[in-house]
Amino acid sequence: MAVYTEVDPDDLAALVARYDIGTVLSCKGIAEGVENSNFLLETTGGRFILTLYEKRVQASDLPFFVDLLGHLADQGCPVPAMIRDRNGEAIQQISGRAACIIQFLSGISLTHPTPAQCEAAGAALGAMHRAVASFPGARENSMGHLHWRGVAEATGDLDAVIPGLQAVVDTEFSWLDAHWPADLPAHVIHADLFPDNVLMLGNRVTGLIDFYFAATDYRAYDVAVTHASWTFSGDGAECDRQLARALMQGYAREITLTDAEIAALPLLARGASLRFLLTRAHDWVHTPADALVTRKDPAPFLNRLRRYQAADAASLFAA
Amino acid sequence: MAVYTEVDPDDLAALVARYDIGTVLSCKGIAEGVENSNFLLETTGGRFILTLYEKRVQASDLPFFVDLLGHLADQGCPVPAMIRDRNGEAIQQISGRAACIIQFLSGISLTHPTPAQCEAAGAALGAMHRAVASFPGARENSMGHLHWRGVAEATGDLDAVIPGLQAVVDTEFSWLDAHWPADLPAHVIHADLFPDNVLMLGNRVTGLIDFYFAATDYRAYDVAVTHASWTFSGDGAECDRQLARALMQGYAREITLTDAEIAALPLLARGASLRFLLTRAHDWVHTPADALVTRKDPAPFLNRLRRYQAADAASLFAA
Repeated sequence: MAVYTEVDPDDLAALVARYDIGTVLSCKGIAEGVENSNFLLETTGGRFILTLYEKRVQASDLPFFVDLLGHLADQGCPVPAMIRDRNGEAIQQISGRAACIIQFLSGISLTHPTPAQCEAAGAALGAMHRAVASFPGARENSMGHLHWRGVAEATGDLDAVIPGLQAVVDTEFSWLDAHWPADLPAHVIHADLFPDNVLMLGNRVTGLIDFYFAATDYRAYDVAVTHASWTFSGDGAECDRQLARALMQGYAREITLTDAEIAALPLLARGASLRFLLTRAHDWVHTPADALVTRKDPAPFLNRLRRYQAADAASLFAA
Repeated sequence: MAVYTEVDPDDLAALVARYDIGTVLSCKGIAEGVENSNFLLETTGGRFILTLYEKRVQASDLPFFVDLLGHLADQGCPVPAMIRDRNGEAIQQISGRAACIIQFLSGISLTHPTPAQCEAAGAALGAMHRAVASFPGARENSMGHLHWRGVAEATGDLDAVIPGLQAVVDTEFSWLDAHWPADLPAHVIHADLFPDNVLMLGNRVTGLIDFYFAATDYRAYDVAVTHASWTFSGDGAECDRQLARALMQGYAREITLTDAEIAALPLLARGASLRFLLTRAHDWVHTPADALVTRKDPAPFLNRLRRYQAADAASLFAA
């Protein structure tokens, strides 16, 4: 949850006046996105999200996100595009922060997706990958596999988080370094498509949101992140084969993965599990227990890592 | 800000299905109300606030609030009435909490009201007092003047909050006890009508919200709370006579205070200042600095108390 920065009503009225979206009717801080301050803004012209970018999103990255989301929206993907003002500007300043007024999308995030909903999410991911293929932008994946050792080092004593974690992580680093594939199809990916970041109504995807980790990486890695976050029990110990198959079938409706990508999926899913295991461990250590942001338990991603290390892991990706 | 409790999408769909308000389109936690978990709920039938009541609001008080807000809404006051389901029930259960689905009201809370806006707020308070006079319900004011000593004692060392505060408070208790009026016109009042709790569009009041301190007390005390919260500089040191006159003029359009009430206003405003000084001091001491809730500085209400103690205080209430 968030809303770190307040917005003065007069400043808000002046900001909205730059756009062709009418006048302000309501503006309520919403508890969404741990990285930014978000407001649900209602004007006489409709509903919007007003996002003020806090320290985790760099202002220099904003043009990339504006372009990416504009491209995807133009291609018919249900993403929250930034609105441009009458001068064509999408990036504004308010309360001392860079800020954007963004399309509002209906839908709610699921906590317990059904197979039909996993299939829809997989298809939405595939459709997004088809749409992004023609996007010319690029961004280094600062949360990509080359950066995970740095996260581990910045965390400090991994064994204090989960006893024995340091040895597991060291072994996994060595294995991933030795086996990481060199040239799979790559383009800008979402890289964080957890159920929280998909809005649905019934079995229909109405929004793919929170692209602030989007960066250039293997598209199959995006599939692996989505697989790891949609198809497991809450403790991460069990992968539900029915959900997994539905997810992969939905994706396959839009994208035919290459043989090399299919072969790499268990490895990429080990990498994805390690990524979230490490960032959660890092935040666990560095976030006070009573801070504004809820700390997420890293242990379920250690369990996923173990599941993807098992000899039968490839079967979890059957479509 | 708040949102302490999560709502499962399936539970939400089942809750909404009890009402004639269509199906869920969106539900976002909003950063409003420090006492409860609030969500902005959009359905095919409109927009609503979903409130889950946390520990500070007693479930046994909810029927009082439902009846009060229903009465005021029926009388044409812009208050957020609780919606009743097809069985006539307004109080529900979800996520282990008592919960209500409530009318959504447009408007935003002002931080720097103008005289015209103060006049509108005063008139809205007066109109609410006219409407509530026929309300048969009653509720003891657990934040009323008989309870302030208890708040002071529960705070502990007042001098640790502001040096010298204990002596100021003790002297004020003695003076208020000796002079507190005995029989002014009383009915249910809002008791917390700070600018945060008034929604406006331009100079028009579109909502009086957050009635969870509403209780039976002197109506002139409600005027005093509103005066203290709308007409002072941020540090509480100066009362803006233009804002104050506008507020009192707006109120006088709806309600003619008795001579006894007018005479009591400076005393009641001293009481109101003491009330918020003490509750803020209490929360200052008992809220961790990095907790979810922002602590509010008590000092501006000590400054208001001093201003209302001055010999010319009666003139601040001239209409």
